Amino acid sequence: MKTARELGLMPKGKLAAGPNNAITDVTGVTVGHRSLRGEGIATGVTAIIPHPGDIFRLKPRAAVEVINGFGKSAGLMQVAELGTIETPILLTNTFGVAACTEALIRRAIAANPAIGRKTSTVNPLVCECNDGSINDIQAMAVTAADADAALDDARAGAVEQGAVGAGSGMTAFGFKAGIGTASRLMRVGKRDFTLGTLVLANFGAAGDLVLPDGRRPDPRVPASPERGSVIVVMATDLPLGDRQLQRVARRGGAGLARLGAFWGHGSGDVCLCFTTADPVEHDPAAPIASQQRLSDDFIDIAFRAAAESTQEAVLNALCTAPATAARNGRIYPALADWLKENPLS
Amino acid sequence: MKTARELGLMPKGKLAAGPNNAITDVTGVTVGHRSLRGEGIATGVTAIIPHPGDIFRLKPRAAVEVINGFGKSAGLMQVAELGTIETPILLTNTFGVAACTEALIRRAIAANPAIGRKTSTVNPLVCECNDGSINDIQAMAVTAADADAALDDARAGAVEQGAVGAGSGMTAFGFKAGIGTASRLMRVGKRDFTLGTLVLANFGAAGDLVLPDGRRPDPRVPASPERGSVIVVMATDLPLGDRQLQRVARRGGAGLARLGAFWGHGSGDVCLCFTTADPVEHDPAAPIASQQRLSDDFIDIAFRAAAESTQEAVLNALCTAPATAARNGRIYPALADWLKENPLS
Amino acid sequence: MKTARELGLMPKGKLAAGPNNAITDVTGVTVGHRSLRGEGIATGVTAIIPHPGDIFRLKPRAAVEVINGFGKSAGLMQVAELGTIETPILLTNTFGVAACTEALIRRAIAANPAIGRKTSTVNPLVCECNDGSINDIQAMAVTAADADAALDDARAGAVEQGAVGAGSGMTAFGFKAGIGTASRLMRVGKRDFTLGTLVLANFGAAGDLVLPDGRRPDPRVPASPERGSVIVVMATDLPLGDRQLQRVARRGGAGLARLGAFWGHGSGDVCLCFTTADPVEHDPAAPIASQQRLSDDFIDIAFRAAAESTQEAVLNALCTAPATAARNGRIYPALADWLKENPLS
Amino acid sequence: MKTARELGLMPKGKLAAGPNNAITDVTGVTVGHRSLRGEGIATGVTAIIPHPGDIFRLKPRAAVEVINGFGKSAGLMQVAELGTIETPILLTNTFGVAACTEALIRRAIAANPAIGRKTSTVNPLVCECNDGSINDIQAMAVTAADADAALDDARAGAVEQGAVGAGSGMTAFGFKAGIGTASRLMRVGKRDFTLGTLVLANFGAAGDLVLPDGRRPDPRVPASPERGSVIVVMATDLPLGDRQLQRVARRGGAGLARLGAFWGHGSGDVCLCFTTADPVEHDPAAPIASQQRLSDDFIDIAFRAAAESTQEAVLNALCTAPATAARNGRIYPALADWLKENPLS
Repeated sequence: MKTARELGLMPKGKLAAGPNNAITDVTGVTVGHRSLRGEGIATGVTAIIPHPGDIFRLKPRAAVEVINGFGKSAGLMQVAELGTIETPILLTNTFGVAACTEALIRRAIAANPAIGRKTSTVNPLVCECNDGSINDIQAMAVTAADADAALDDARAGAVEQGAVGAGSGMTAFGFKAGIGTASRLMRVGKRDFTLGTLVLANFGAAGDLVLPDGRRPDPRVPASPERGSVIVVMATDLPLGDRQLQRVARRGGAGLARLGAFWGHGSGDVCLCFTTADPVEHDPAAPIASQQRLSDDFIDIAFRAAAESTQEAVLNALCTAPATAARNGRIYPALADWLKENPLS
Repeated sequence: MKTARELGLMPKGKLAAGPNNAITDVTGVTVGHRSLRGEGIATGVTAIIPHPGDIFRLKPRAAVEVINGFGKSAGLMQVAELGTIETPILLTNTFGVAACTEALIRRAIAANPAIGRKTSTVNPLVCECNDGSINDIQAMAVTAADADAALDDARAGAVEQGAVGAGSGMTAFGFKAGIGTASRLMRVGKRDFTLGTLVLANFGAAGDLVLPDGRRPDPRVPASPERGSVIVVMATDLPLGDRQLQRVARRGGAGLARLGAFWGHGSGDVCLCFTTADPVEHDPAAPIASQQRLSDDFIDIAFRAAAESTQEAVLNALCTAPATAARNGRIYPALADWLKENPLS
Repeated sequence: MKTARELGLMPKGKLAAGPNNAITDVTGVTVGHRSLRGEGIATGVTAIIPHPGDIFRLKPRAAVEVINGFGKSAGLMQVAELGTIETPILLTNTFGVAACTEALIRRAIAANPAIGRKTSTVNPLVCECNDGSINDIQAMAVTAADADAALDDARAGAVEQGAVGAGSGMTAFGFKAGIGTASRLMRVGKRDFTLGTLVLANFGAAGDLVLPDGRRPDPRVPASPERGSVIVVMATDLPLGDRQLQRVARRGGAGLARLGAFWGHGSGDVCLCFTTADPVEHDPAAPIASQQRLSDDFIDIAFRAAAESTQEAVLNALCTAPATAARNGRIYPALADWLKENPLS
Repeated sequence: MKTARELGLMPKGKLAAGPNNAITDVTGVTVGHRSLRGEGIATGVTAIIPHPGDIFRLKPRAAVEVINGFGKSAGLMQVAELGTIETPILLTNTFGVAACTEALIRRAIAANPAIGRKTSTVNPLVCECNDGSINDIQAMAVTAADADAALDDARAGAVEQGAVGAGSGMTAFGFKAGIGTASRLMRVGKRDFTLGTLVLANFGAAGDLVLPDGRRPDPRVPASPERGSVIVVMATDLPLGDRQLQRVARRGGAGLARLGAFWGHGSGDVCLCFTTADPVEHDPAAPIASQQRLSDDFIDIAFRAAAESTQEAVLNALCTAPATAARNGRIYPALADWLKENPLS
């Protein structure tokens, strides 16, 4: 499948994309998928691992922005309070959260036996969308073993997109969608930084999608109230502070709105942003440490990168997912097919 | 000057506009302007009066959503806590807030002599943008008398837009901008409701504006860091609850993002939403009263109306403002002129 | 075991307690416990059921206030966005959240087979504290069957307190603690209302507890960093609006602070408040409905009831829990014993 | 007048007070007062200056926590967004905010003529309480010159407390109150730090005050709905990050609750916390700078200092204010007199 950029959809913005145009362009970040297919089953797990070390012992600093909180993600409250994450980030379907949570707890304990005993407990971070249109969500097909498989699959480089991992059964704007990713390079002073975004796209009412060129693709599926969601995960190596991370996360909402979304009532629209700069040690050597921090005067480039990469990541999720039948038999078409049938004259 | 709709810019959305395509389409809402022009001075005050009665005694329910808080508005904290407004809403330049505040306090006391004595004080509501590029803001030209003049000018029906009132010296996306307004009709059950939006548009970096048809007008002015702001005021007669009002206000941010904004660091982007339904009495007759409330299942139409009307109101502010010289002599062009010079073939 | 009131600890406040001095004084609210004891195991589940009907179909309106977010509760984001709860509230230990979540999902689906298919998914509400000092939390002893047992045990009337249900292994201020409850009657206009509070108390550093009479009981256990938490659940029949519910929930923090707590870094201090008035129908008959709402001018009585009942509920949890051995052999003493040994002369 | 400590009211806590037991124990912080007395007038201004330099050019990092937002303070939104303050902090009566705002703007422009022209505008920070019971607030007695006088009066060392400056006409718990301050020393690693708090105390219903020894002083004044407010300003030299500053500010609410307050509906309870460590340059030399940051593992000492110093600062405001006649002739008694008449046997 071709990406939005390969299909000529994404205009040249003010910022260039990274080598993979993916969240993995941020050094150390890896992504893995576990896709489940079967009788009525089209779901899975996608794992984002912020760095190759032990996440519990070296906690990336992070922030969360809830655009619309109709969702069942796990772990967000503690991220909001403490500004760190201490497990990989798992994406899955709504009813897979408990299984993914359990997997993250067990892995954290295996690596750190003092958890819950001599030290505090661990905060598993699992975000979700409802893939119930295509996937039989009541079957609760996702197991802790699937979460492990996604984590074990994590790798650097190109990221598989579309109907894969947690995106297997997701739809957006009446088209088949799923996982998408994009990245932006940012020059600050004389140094280069990267912001990469991965989305689990499952939002937007049919007929509302707006392409960057102004066209409004109509999937010709029956209108239905928006009950989807979207998870936006951003990674960067910019040394952002606590408040800055949340401000950058918030700009994911701008990227979604550029696509025509108005953050519908029934949608769980959640943005996370973590930085690989200056992670927090679980057992700090000293009570006070030094950390780098970007001046706010230079933060607009990160806001722009967040909005642009979110917009492009969703377009990539739409462009790379094939037409798929829903549980009720209706077809969620592929945006790539619509583009073929509706060429720009 | 022609509006965005008259210029063919605004595509037919899913919701129709009201008769004036203005915030005044919500019954009872009036708008007034006081424009100041002079040597180096191009500023003013715009007043939005929620209903014809005494606002302090019959407080419209309201909510505020701060999209980006780089701003100096007065009165927002109490709106956030109590969910009501108790004065008209005044818009002005950043250094005019104190004068407008004073005018609102004095008028409230004149009508309600017990304020600050036998009863609580009054919460003046004044929002602002920085018009310092065109207006000599240090001159502090706005006086309490100007605020009174804007309030006294308030009327129903068509609203003057562009470089008028608080919008006199404002710019957006490198073009001259100012005051804009739009509205949407909403059918809920068998009843018709209206949501109207008025913006004070002074935000967006040159080159970032995206028109609904995908074009990106370039004003060919030197790039500068975004230091503007935008105030979005929504009125509706839908019976929204406290939480719903804030959720609707938040969707103003979606309207801004559709125009290409990413809610820049230096921008004070503030959205207010009030309803004329079931206002709160200052001296309630009984401790418990009945009020109407929309079911959340039907709220998406208000979200859509909020995003669409915000987008169109900003376009109207841009379309109706003439080219204007900045204090440093450079010209902020008119979007209407750009459209004339760049016809859609 | 005797309550704080029976031990003479609780001064006569300005508001009287209800007949059971318990959250169950709010008509329709029931509480059930499932306690687990065994080799190294002292944990369990406590269930609070807001009304006897189907919670998913008739959703109590609710709000959440996170005092300190070092915690792993499930379901709070959606409560914060939508202002309703749609399952009973379960309390358990940190690693029991996934099992309790699963139980709530399965029960909701059993009663409403359309969940996740024709209708949205369900938002399970599970709050937790870490009982790892007394309980072997890594054993993950809590199962979905235990959650079911607690739900099936729910009853009106007197509530068992202390080392029971989710409180089995909890400690506070260096003493054994657990479940506590209290209530307050509120006269508003000519009608009587009730606010009842149930706490899962597992917070506070040894030596910090302040009794209402100013004494500071020292459990003479080694100091340790606060890693506990406290969950405060309030029920009322007052017709509070969305914003009011959150403001009342916030006052739980005042009750905790009166006991000497400063809401420690490592503590997950979460307050929930729901009202049984005007619940929200899952399938509303009409888009707009009427609901009762208290005037803010009369809300101080609910703030007072929230603070007082939270303070007393925690004292009850402390007074009714017996001395208990920790996993490392040290004893968490009973506050009742301390009071006996330190009589007010 | 004697302080709470001198009157034996304040128990020995776990942390020692600084040399002045005042906010000025934080190096560089100065406090000044301007008191206005006259026919019906008892009001004023209190200034807190974070450091001796130009606050606009070297912005202290800060955070705000709104405990209850029934208030009219100016400047809080931008502090919440950007995490810095750029003027001294002025305290005054509710209707004095505009005059104090104007004074801060004019002084900032005088020192930095580019404000509002080549650079962004300035965010004046003014907090307020309503002293309308004692002071004729409608007379709007506070002028910009009074704000200047308070700023010019600022000095290090001992701070005048009680009925002085902005505290001239304030009352709390039915007693005369006003300005109070206290501080705590904090040992972190091998270094010593200080947290100092200054309050403008004008809150609490008569009969609700609880002394640290459990006594409840009754001022025997007629009950009235709480319409007061309290402003809590904390300064520290601990290198706290953005998120930490807000968490520390929040603990001011714990200090208030320990005194018996439940953060009443009609009260504007606002806490600010700033650090003198690593201030932000207005024109940074480089886009990325290094800053110190405390590990969260050590933050409880700052939480404790915040709660304790807030509690003691309010007691100091109460202990040092003399009995005063209200505008309606009734007397607000002095807590010092009550203590004399009610000795601990």
